[in-house]
Amino acid sequence: MEAMKISAKTHEESANSSHNGSSSSLKMENGMTHGIYAKMAKEKLNASHLAERINSTERLKKESTEHLSHLEDGPRRSTSEDAELFDTAILKDLEFAKTLNERGEISISPATSEDSLVLRALRRSDYHLEYMELLSQLTVVGAVTQDMFEKRFDSMRRAEGSYYTIVIEEKLPKRRIVGSATLVIEQKFIRATALRGRVEDVVVHRDRRGQDLGKLLMEVATVLSKSLGCYKVSLECKDRLVEFYSQFGYQVDPGNNYMMQRFHE
Amino acid sequence: MEAMKISAKTHEESANSSHNGSSSSLKMENGMTHGIYAKMAKEKLNASHLAERINSTERLKKESTEHLSHLEDGPRRSTSEDAELFDTAILKDLEFAKTLNERGEISISPATSEDSLVLRALRRSDYHLEYMELLSQLTVVGAVTQDMFEKRFDSMRRAEGSYYTIVIEEKLPKRRIVGSATLVIEQKFIRATALRGRVEDVVVHRDRRGQDLGKLLMEVATVLSKSLGCYKVSLECKDRLVEFYSQFGYQVDPGNNYMMQRFHE
Repeated sequence: MEAMKISAKTHEESANSSHNGSSSSLKMENGMTHGIYAKMAKEKLNASHLAERINSTERLKKESTEHLSHLEDGPRRSTSEDAELFDTAILKDLEFAKTLNERGEISISPATSEDSLVLRALRRSDYHLEYMELLSQLTVVGAVTQDMFEKRFDSMRRAEGSYYTIVIEEKLPKRRIVGSATLVIEQKFIRATALRGRVEDVVVHRDRRGQDLGKLLMEVATVLSKSLGCYKVSLECKDRLVEFYSQFGYQVDPGNNYMMQRFHE
Repeated sequence: MEAMKISAKTHEESANSSHNGSSSSLKMENGMTHGIYAKMAKEKLNASHLAERINSTERLKKESTEHLSHLEDGPRRSTSEDAELFDTAILKDLEFAKTLNERGEISISPATSEDSLVLRALRRSDYHLEYMELLSQLTVVGAVTQDMFEKRFDSMRRAEGSYYTIVIEEKLPKRRIVGSATLVIEQKFIRATALRGRVEDVVVHRDRRGQDLGKLLMEVATVLSKSLGCYKVSLECKDRLVEFYSQFGYQVDPGNNYMMQRFHE
């Protein structure tokens, strides 16, 4: 397969956007654009079908240089700098259906430039793309050296099938990670040796808030958990976020309590 | 080291016990008895110190035949029938401190026979000790064949450092698993690449309820999570169990909600 990059149809500016009017779209690492992503949801297609359609409509415009080459040689299992925590290709096989919002799509507000955002798996090299700085906008991060980051990354990667950290990379005006959510998979003996998902550490860069990137991350994490066969998926959240998460099908479980204790910060 | 089994001091019957008056004690697989476990808590000793004391007080009475041999050749990494999900030996290194109950101990009510209960890691062979039947007293289990069980066990074991399923084996009148709790460890990038624990699937056999086995499992799982370096540990529970879990230091986190969705049962 020839590696390719697919240019995206730009979105109409949303009415309530306060942005500067330049347009962008979010594309998945495998070339699925966000506009297509939304359409796909409506038509209940998966990305494989979609790719065929795209091929037939002459949307093939750019060649991927750095980001799609891994689709040709399979998921990387090395600990090279650009190793992925999981194979981004699985994102393209997701079937989007009922968990999308009422309109059956997620709209991304205009941002700075076409093709400026990419959705993909976390990479070992993302330490250099301000990943920890992004996480520090969520909670206490502390001093995480590159070595610490890489050790943790490698360890999560070895626990194959357990950690799915999905990130949004901003290409312009600056390469950096501007969004992240992690789906953690827990293995069970109950329910016919089921899997169970948890969505953890959802964060969007303060410069990119109000553009529905959080929605996109939540959609992908949730649909991925279903796709992986989880019998349920859960999360913990502050009161003010209950409504936000409700739109993705999450409900407060009446009569069920979340209890915790901290040993240290 | 010579493998050994240590006979336990029997507990006084608790005042509200409805049992038949025969006495028992719960011993850890490595020979630490439950009576000692409680004393250890008071004195803030760890089991290593304890073992020395035990040695010096001529409590060495029995030789372990089947259960302690693994301490001599290290944790087992095979997929043999008696493979452990984690090395039971780590339980003996736990330091018990503040998380015990107000009296600084857990009392086990009299049961059927001395030495009839053993605390240890889940084993691959526990499928034959009615482990799934025990879990079915907690929730939906479905039809789990031996093959399914072993595949799940092996997969959890490969994810080294992630799954700590602690079980209580009843020796008499029948060999079977009568208690279980799982500590799941999640790896984080935040908080200086922290670990975070979750206590899952706590269950005591209906024939053994009211004997504080649930307390013991919770104590061990909680102290283990701290010992492994978790910055926090959490669980989800029904309203009626909030008080029970409070005694181990767990608190409902005000303003934090547990949300979930089920894809199927």
